[in-house]
Amino acid sequence: MTGKFVGVGVGPGDPELITVKAVKTLKTADVISIPKAHADKPSLALATVKHILEERERPPEVLELVFPMTKDAEGLKKSWSRNARIIAEKAKADKIIAFITLGDPMFYSTFIYLCQRMQEEYPEVNLEIIPGVTSLTACAAVSKIPLAEKNEVVAIIPSGIDSNRIGEIAKHANSLVLMKGSKRLKELVPILEKSGFTKNSTIALVRRCTMPEEKVMIGKLGDVENWDIHEDYFSISMIKENELQNNKKEDKV
Amino acid sequence: MTGKFVGVGVGPGDPELITVKAVKTLKTADVISIPKAHADKPSLALATVKHILEERERPPEVLELVFPMTKDAEGLKKSWSRNARIIAEKAKADKIIAFITLGDPMFYSTFIYLCQRMQEEYPEVNLEIIPGVTSLTACAAVSKIPLAEKNEVVAIIPSGIDSNRIGEIAKHANSLVLMKGSKRLKELVPILEKSGFTKNSTIALVRRCTMPEEKVMIGKLGDVENWDIHEDYFSISMIKENELQNNKKEDKV
Repeated sequence: MTGKFVGVGVGPGDPELITVKAVKTLKTADVISIPKAHADKPSLALATVKHILEERERPPEVLELVFPMTKDAEGLKKSWSRNARIIAEKAKADKIIAFITLGDPMFYSTFIYLCQRMQEEYPEVNLEIIPGVTSLTACAAVSKIPLAEKNEVVAIIPSGIDSNRIGEIAKHANSLVLMKGSKRLKELVPILEKSGFTKNSTIALVRRCTMPEEKVMIGKLGDVENWDIHEDYFSISMIKENELQNNKKEDKV
Repeated sequence: MTGKFVGVGVGPGDPELITVKAVKTLKTADVISIPKAHADKPSLALATVKHILEERERPPEVLELVFPMTKDAEGLKKSWSRNARIIAEKAKADKIIAFITLGDPMFYSTFIYLCQRMQEEYPEVNLEIIPGVTSLTACAAVSKIPLAEKNEVVAIIPSGIDSNRIGEIAKHANSLVLMKGSKRLKELVPILEKSGFTKNSTIALVRRCTMPEEKVMIGKLGDVENWDIHEDYFSISMIKENELQNNKKEDKV
């Protein structure tokens, strides 16, 4: 079987933050598949690679894989099983199917569900994963604040974690990254201040990191209560125990 | 001033896992600078981008920035201050200086020292940072095990952290990533087993991830005591609370 299923990380949003390996795959894949939860929302991952696909002489098949936005584990599994069958049939017909995902395929991505179905139900299909730049380090790059250095411990916290658990984690970490959930930031400040962070701890909140609508806010944890925070699905916050080392950066807020 | 200082992440080691943006910068930069701690060791970051530099019509200046391998903070700071002055002078002469780093510039990188000196001492010099694919997600990609999904908390732990603190962190995380320090793995297993992980928890140990000498070991935490672990500076371990979901992967060990 020459067909394969390839999970492709396309990076955080800037079309130039995609890897050379991902570009090569997107130029040659027979099928580009994207997850589709909302029929009316355009795919940001697809927008990021649009120029690559448009340059192709022979356009690929674009395959939208519909899945329900539900927490019902069984329903979700069935839905991804159906999608896995579609992929497996194409791979067995010697097609190369690239599933594109913003950031990295193995980091809080929809790809993981499909990947697990493929591994369990179609282990005979070749599987390849191309890692991508995550919003994690892209956020550090645009805010020009290190994510971690020397012996610093980093904790990555998704938005669904309850505040007490975040407080416990904060006690043991030097850098915290909150994935999404920027609307909870103000409520979290007092909890973090009881867990080893202070009013002077550095915080960077980045909305739509490396995308055209990017917005970067940098300051001290004590400033957050005065920030005008617009909730956005694509937001990430990085909080560092220490104060900012150069005052210049604080001017940005 | 048209000159600038650019921190360039070149990815985890596979020359194709570099971003398009990084390639563009390396094709046009006047100076490629690399950190040099050991005069006799070749730079892996430089090896990763060698083909890009060789394709250039006009070869760049390659600038080795020597720094001591010391824990003396003052000595290190002075040494990086000297390097920052060299960079600043070139940038003020309208040169573009790209400092290359394996992985990502803001994630446990030597670049951070230099970046901080530049921000404090030469804030007038334009600074740009190009994020890269880290060994973190590259390790998940090659082992085909998700780094994090849904509401999983990830803790990233550098090798210098003491075992008790690792135990405390483990209590609150679903995925642990140990940066380097693979020789400590066997000693850590009983500590992790007291912190919510079990003998059946999944572990992937990857040496030289995505490099030609890559070695991937996947199994259960309880298997680690029987593993033949070769210490390597470029090693990373990913430990997930849960058992592997598909038995197939365990065959790899």
